[in-house]
This record gives sequence, structure tokens and C-alpha cells, in this order.
Amino acid sequence: MNYANLQARFFALRSNKAFELFVVSVILFSALVIGAKTYDMPPALLTVIGWLDVGITLFFLVEITVRFLGEPDKKRFFHNAWNIFDTLIVVVSLIPIEDSEMALVGRLIRIFRVLRMVSIVPELRVLLNSLLKALPQLGYVILLMFIIFYIYAAIGATFFAGINDTLWGDISIAMLTLFRVMTFEDWTDVMYETMAVYPLSWFFYLTFIFLTTFAFLNMVIGIVVNVMETEHAAEKERKSEENNEPTMQALHSEIQSLKAMISELSSQQKEK
Amino acid sequence: MNYANLQARFFALRSNKAFELFVVSVILFSALVIGAKTYDMPPALLTVIGWLDVGITLFFLVEITVRFLGEPDKKRFFHNAWNIFDTLIVVVSLIPIEDSEMALVGRLIRIFRVLRMVSIVPELRVLLNSLLKALPQLGYVILLMFIIFYIYAAIGATFFAGINDTLWGDISIAMLTLFRVMTFEDWTDVMYETMAVYPLSWFFYLTFIFLTTFAFLNMVIGIVVNVMETEHAAEKERKSEENNEPTMQALHSEIQSLKAMISELSSQQKEK
Amino acid sequence: MNYANLQARFFALRSNKAFELFVVSVILFSALVIGAKTYDMPPALLTVIGWLDVGITLFFLVEITVRFLGEPDKKRFFHNAWNIFDTLIVVVSLIPIEDSEMALVGRLIRIFRVLRMVSIVPELRVLLNSLLKALPQLGYVILLMFIIFYIYAAIGATFFAGINDTLWGDISIAMLTLFRVMTFEDWTDVMYETMAVYPLSWFFYLTFIFLTTFAFLNMVIGIVVNVMETEHAAEKERKSEENNEPTMQALHSEIQSLKAMISELSSQQKEK
Amino acid sequence: MNYANLQARFFALRSNKAFELFVVSVILFSALVIGAKTYDMPPALLTVIGWLDVGITLFFLVEITVRFLGEPDKKRFFHNAWNIFDTLIVVVSLIPIEDSEMALVGRLIRIFRVLRMVSIVPELRVLLNSLLKALPQLGYVILLMFIIFYIYAAIGATFFAGINDTLWGDISIAMLTLFRVMTFEDWTDVMYETMAVYPLSWFFYLTFIFLTTFAFLNMVIGIVVNVMETEHAAEKERKSEENNEPTMQALHSEIQSLKAMISELSSQQKEK
Repeated sequence: MNYANLQARFFALRSNKAFELFVVSVILFSALVIGAKTYDMPPALLTVIGWLDVGITLFFLVEITVRFLGEPDKKRFFHNAWNIFDTLIVVVSLIPIEDSEMALVGRLIRIFRVLRMVSIVPELRVLLNSLLKALPQLGYVILLMFIIFYIYAAIGATFFAGINDTLWGDISIAMLTLFRVMTFEDWTDVMYETMAVYPLSWFFYLTFIFLTTFAFLNMVIGIVVNVMETEHAAEKERKSEENNEPTMQALHSEIQSLKAMISELSSQQKEK
Repeated sequence: MNYANLQARFFALRSNKAFELFVVSVILFSALVIGAKTYDMPPALLTVIGWLDVGITLFFLVEITVRFLGEPDKKRFFHNAWNIFDTLIVVVSLIPIEDSEMALVGRLIRIFRVLRMVSIVPELRVLLNSLLKALPQLGYVILLMFIIFYIYAAIGATFFAGINDTLWGDISIAMLTLFRVMTFEDWTDVMYETMAVYPLSWFFYLTFIFLTTFAFLNMVIGIVVNVMETEHAAEKERKSEENNEPTMQALHSEIQSLKAMISELSSQQKEK
Repeated sequence: MNYANLQARFFALRSNKAFELFVVSVILFSALVIGAKTYDMPPALLTVIGWLDVGITLFFLVEITVRFLGEPDKKRFFHNAWNIFDTLIVVVSLIPIEDSEMALVGRLIRIFRVLRMVSIVPELRVLLNSLLKALPQLGYVILLMFIIFYIYAAIGATFFAGINDTLWGDISIAMLTLFRVMTFEDWTDVMYETMAVYPLSWFFYLTFIFLTTFAFLNMVIGIVVNVMETEHAAEKERKSEENNEPTMQALHSEIQSLKAMISELSSQQKEK
Repeated sequence: MNYANLQARFFALRSNKAFELFVVSVILFSALVIGAKTYDMPPALLTVIGWLDVGITLFFLVEITVRFLGEPDKKRFFHNAWNIFDTLIVVVSLIPIEDSEMALVGRLIRIFRVLRMVSIVPELRVLLNSLLKALPQLGYVILLMFIIFYIYAAIGATFFAGINDTLWGDISIAMLTLFRVMTFEDWTDVMYETMAVYPLSWFFYLTFIFLTTFAFLNMVIGIVVNVMETEHAAEKERKSEENNEPTMQALHSEIQSLKAMISELSSQQKEK
């Protein structure tokens, strides 16, 4: 059996629905194993789960190999961000880890295997892509929000650091505290504390809440308008393609040609 | 009086507006009885309420029998999910329960009778159906959200279980804790606790909040766009039916036929 | 000076812009007086404010009298809900109150005078009307929400009353607790308490939150769709009126008449 | 080198992309310096930062001078609100401050320099302008909300001041407490406290929450509808300009002229 033959077979396997379903099942099973590990278990079961873990790692290794060998153009394989992600997860989970610090990282990697669910199911991939695509369009609103956070955090860290070092110690802690205020999480506790020293500091909190709420609303509305326009444009195109409906332009040129015909008719009659 | 006659009578009764109103009143009354039972009452009143309860159960039994006998096609009766629900509620509340454990279940069943309100009032049934119909369209967003929850819960249960067993003990408790974080309910308390051990764990919470908020927004926008499109399509159809307005296509073919007529006229003239 | 003359004069006064502005100023001033009363004040100032209060009451009495006498059709005066509201506020604040219990009611009435702002400024009246008009259209969603609340409150009061009587004592207290849960206000405290007895009670809270959030979203979307459609229809009408743009129907009948003319032309030619 | 030549050079410098990028970098650097100052630092570093601060101040002075001298019409320079803001920030940060009270103000001014980011980046300026432009259109909703707050605060301060002076002491503190209730921040603590004295005061809180939520929703929807209409109108104009598509009106007049031609044709024929 030559190589080209093998590749064609792997390619066929890769696109096979049953194979895909089986991979999804293994991912789901690995997710259950990860979940099971968080419960207290007898040592016997722990050993079983350890072996299952090895088995899942090997299966993913085989699967990624099939995927890679089945790819007609080897270069294109690594142009797909999901393939790189899959390969990384598989390769890293192959490294034997003894050190307890690194063991945690190894467990993290195993957890991220669940994300392979997204790389396998096309609908989820599309959904995630559309979520990520929406982000850059909101770039300037996010920048504006960051400027608001930065300025308020600088003010907070400058004036309130002496009042509560845990909340306003430096600018990064202050930004975390402001995020807390933005989610309305016990924000009055934070406010009453500083109001005891600066009685007018309620103005600081209220303006911050108004500004961020307003900017957030703007962001949401931005997404809504965006999504709607995309939907609208897509629907319009679909409709015009399906119905093959004539445009106003077409009607106009039809009437134009009618006119030409009649004026010709009129001139013929005059000639007679 | 033969059976067919009886069925016709029951069918008429079933569709009778006054009968429907009476059933709604009994359901409302049963809701009040359920509410009354949660207050402390003298034993005499308790006995009265016990009898009322029996009366309501019997009335519902009679009502469901009328409904069933009035149905021309007996098989179709159980194709309606609401009829099955109604029958179940009535049948289960007929079982005499002595055991204290089961007594609570019996009380639950009596409470669910209030849901019959939805099965009787058509507008509520339509509303609930439209709510349920919206769910599957959101299937993949909900799946994505579940994957986000699962991965974060796995990370949380792996790293934070040693810090607070009540919040991060195993993956299911961790998911409940994450839901709490998602609702912003004292989420900073949860965060500050883990930040004492892992100072960078704020990253865990902030990314989680961003991801879920973003996915939730996407879900909401999905529903909005969906509802609007349905409305839009419905309105369009309604309008075109009412006004009987000609389409662009119709105008086009009209002009087309005009052209044909004129060219015929032109050729007639030439023949002469 | 006869009565009709007087009425015409009052009617003119009522519609006078300067008079309206003066009334708005007095209402604003009465709002400030009400606000001032909540601060601790020396007795001298209190006496002054007491006299100002009497003055404002008298002014409002004069104003409502002018309004009533200026009305050409006395019956129509009381068809306007705002007029009834204004008269009630003025009449009730005239009653001298000595009893301390009733004194609080008197103060309440004085506070409600600020609402006269809404009855005077037409834009606010329009806004409030549109808010009130939106409510009945949401009738069935609100009914569904009430049924959800009632059923969950009945379940809560039945099962959790023994755990915490302050939160789940009877069905009305349970509904207040559920409203608290719906606003995410320390809802986990409520949940953890009942989970200690019924470990599966998280299911009760989570389903409740999902149902109410979903119903609430539906309500919001309902309003949005409604507002948009109204806007859309209004804009369309405005546009078609302004541009006086011909409809598809008009174009169609024009082409129809063209056809008739040509076929007539054609038959004329044949006759020749 | 004469003055006009100098101005033209400064104008060219002002519009230079590289110069703009350099100014943005300095602003970013000044933001980092401000952030760094909130951390504990050795005295040596503090001195360095002190000198950097002076350097940034001088650079901004030079930059604003270039901007001013480069302006062809000196009067127009101060018609731009951002220019006034920039000049103020630079001038105030030049004043040497020794007093510790005023030193805080000086630090505030330095923090506000970060806002120059908005005045330099055109996209942010456009975004902020559009946010500010949306506000007046919401004027009456905000006024209505203020009236709701004022009335509820007056009621709260009148009835609950005796229960908790910190929360309901006077009308301004009561408004702050109501804002807290509106954000659902531990609002049940506030409610349970007053319910101990006035058992029906839950009605006060619930109606307040309903009214403000409803008004807030109305505000949000108002913005959404507004933004959408603007987008819609903009898109429509863009489309009609691009496609140069004939309007219904144009089609109508074309058909009108066709009719005229045919009727002329018809009369010619009759004459013959």
C-alpha cells in the first residue's frame, strides 16, 4: 500500500460521520473523567482513572495523526488555528510531569481538552468565530471604557489609598475594585468607607456608574445594530436570489425601451 | 339517551364559555386554598380547607372526564401534552397518601394544579409555547455556555478545592458557585478568598464574567433578532394579503405584455 | 362684569404661557420646601416654612379654581384624570390635621404635590401615558410571571417554612423572598440555608431564576418590538404623506390603463 | 524667517501623522507615570518620576503652543471645546503648588491629562460626541426619573428618618439610598429594617423598583430606537446614492409620459 493510498484513506476516515461521532464521544468521556477526578475517590478507582487518562491521551494522539496524514496539503494543516490548538494540547499532555507545581499545569491541559469539543463541532466553531469577530468592531468603545477605568482608578488610588489599602492600594487593585463597583457588588460598602473621609466621594462613584453603564449600553446596542444589519443584508440577498425579483432599475429600463418603441411607431405613422 | 348524543353534549359543554369561566374560577379558588394553607390557622378552618380540597379534586375529576368523553377522537386526546398533564395531576391527587414523606409530594401535586390555569387560558398556552419554541434555536449558545461553565468549574475544583471545600469541593458545587459569580452575588468574597492563595486568580473570575456576559448577550440578541424576523415576516404577509398589492414581478410582466402588444401593433402597421 | 366674560378671562389666563411657567415655579418651590423639611432646622425657619406651606396650598386652591372656572364645559373638567388628581390633592391638603397619625398622611399629600409637575408639563404627561399604555399589552406575560411566582412561593412556603419562618413563613412573605431572589440580592444565602436541609433545593432556585429571567426578557423584547413597530408605522405614514409617493397599486393601475389605450389603438387600426 | 512661514510650518507639523503618534505616545507614557506613582517606590525612583513629570508638562506646553501658532484663525482655536480643555490642563499644571491640600488638586489635573487621549484620537472624539448627543434626547425620561426619585426620597426621609438616620436622614441621603436600592445593592437589608416598624413598607420599595426599572428600560429602548433609525436613514441614503436607483415617483412620471405619447399616437391615427 503506497503513501497516496494511505492519505486518501485517512482523509476519508477524517470526514467520516461515524468517526467524528466517536471522537465527540471520547471528548465527552474525557470531560466526565475530568469531572470525576474532582470528587473524593477510593485509590482503586483513581488508578482506573489514571489508565483511562493515558488511553484518552493516546487516542487523541492517534486521531491528530490521522487528521495530519489525511491532510492533502500539509502546510495548510497548520494554517487552521484549531489544528494548532489541538496539536499543542495533545503534545503537551504527552510530556510526563512529576513535579507537583507542573502537575497542576498538566491537569489544566487535560481540562482544556474539553475545548476540543468546539474544534470538532462545526456549529460551535462558527458561533465562537462570530463572537470573536464582533470584538474588534467594538474596539474603540472598549478603549474608551479602559480610559474611564484608568482615570477613575488613578483618582481612587491617589485619594483613597490611605483609607483602605486592600481596595485602593495601587492602580491595578483600584481597577479591580472599580470593576466590582461596576457589577454593583457591595459597592455601597466601598462608598460609605470613603464617604467617612471625603463626604463628597459619592460623586466619584455615581459618575463612574453612569459613565460605565452608558458605555456598556452603547456596546450592547452596537452589537445589536451590527447583528441586525448583517441579518438584514443576508436576508435581502437570499430573497432577491430566490425570487429573482426585478429591481426598480430593471423596471425603469423596460419602460424606457417601451417609450423608444412607441416613438418609433409614431414616426412610422407620420412617414406614411 | 345514546352515547353519541352524550358525547355531543359533553363536547358542547367543553366549548361552552361559561363552563370555561367556571373551571378558571375553580382553579383560582384552588390556588387561594393552597395559599391559605401556608398561613397558621385554627383547626376548625383546617378541616374546612381539607373538605374544600376534596371537593376541588372531585370537580377536576369530573371536568377531565367531561373533556375526555366529549372528545370525538379518543386517541387525539392524549396527543395533546396539556391533556396528559391535566390527567396526571388529577389521577395522582386521587391517591390517598398517609406517609409524611409522600404527603409533601401530594401537596406539591396540589400546587401544580395552578398550572392548569395555563392549560385552560389559550393566550397563556400560546405564550408558553412561543417561549419553549425559542429554546431549541438557542441550543448551540446554551451548549457553548455549558462548556464554558464545565471548563471553569473543572479548573476551580482542581485548584481551589483546598481553599474552600464548600464552594469548590467538586465540579457540581463549583458550577453552582460559578452561577453565583455570574449573577454577581457576593462574587468578590469568593474571589478575595482564592486571591489570598493564588494572587492572579482574579484573571479566572474576570475572564469567566466576560465570557458568560458576552455569551448571554449573544443569546438575548439571538432571541431579539428571531422575534423581530418572525414579526417582520408576519406583518409583511398580513400587509400583502390585506392590500393585495402587486409585486415587482407582476409589474414587470405587465410591462412585458405591453411591449408585446406594441410590437404587434408596429408589425400590423408595417404590413399595411 | 358678567360670568361669561369672567370665564373667557380665566380661560385665557389658563392657556397663558407666563401663568403656566409661574405655576411650574411654585410647584418646584413646593418641592424644595418639602426637601428642606427633611433637614434639621432652627424653630424660626420651621415657622417660616409652615407659612410658606399655607401660601402654596392657597395658591394651588386659587389656581385650580381658575382652571375650573375657565373651563367652558364644566362636566369635561372631571373627565380628565389629571384634573381629578389635582383637585383631590388641593382639597385634602386644605383639611386641618392635628392628630399625629393623620399628620403623616398630610405630609404625604404635600409630597404628592410634586406630581403636579407631570400634570402641568405636557411632554411628561405624554411620556407617562405611553408608559401606562405599554402595560396592558404585556398583560399575559405579567399574568404568567405571577403564576410562576405563586407556584414557587407555594412550594417554598410548604417546604421551607420550618427552616426559616422570616423568609418562607407564608405565601406572601415567600413571594417577597422570591422577588429578592429574582433581583439576585443575597440569593445564595437564602439557597445555602435550605440546601442544608434539602440538598437538591438548588434546583428550585435555578429553575426559578431561569424562568423569571426568560419571562422578563420576553417582556422587554415585547416592549422593544412594540415600540419599534409603532415607530416604524409612524415613520412610514409620515414619509408617504411628505413625499406623496405613488404606491405599487397606483403604478399597476397606470400600466393597466396604458394597456387599455394600446389595445384600443390596435382595434382602431384593424377597423381601418 | 517671517511669521506666516512659521505658522505654515507649525500647521504642517500639527497635521503630521508622526507628530500625532509621538503626542499619543507621550500621553500614554504620562498615563504610565501616573499609574506608577500609586505604587510604593524607593525615593530615587520618585525623584526620576518627578523630573519625568516636569518633562511631560513642558512637552505639553510646547505641543499646545505649536497647535495654537499653527492655527490660521486664532479665534477659531478657542471655539473648539477640546482645545480649551487642553489649554486649561496645561496651564493649571504649570502653577507650582506647595500646599498639601492643593497638591491633591495638582495630582488630579495630571490624571486628567490622560483624557487628552480622547482629544487627540478622532475616533474617540466622535464616539464621545455621539454619547453626549444621545443625552438631551432622553431629557424628559431623565426628568421623570428625577421626579420619581425626589418623591420617593421625600416619602422615605419623612417616614424612615427615625428608623435609620444614616440611610434616610435627609432628602439627599435618601436619594443616595434609593439609588442603592435601584442597583439592588443589599436593598433587602434596607427594606427589612423599615418593615420592622412599617410592615407595609415593602410596597414602597417594590413600586419604586418597578417604576425605575420601567423608566430605565424605556430609556434604553429610546436609545436603541434612536440609534437604529439613524443607522437606517444613513444606510438608505448611502444605498440610494450608490445604486442611483430610480424612485417610484420617477417610474410614475415615466409611465405618465408614455400615456401622453400613446394618446398623441391615437389622435394622429384618428385624424388620418
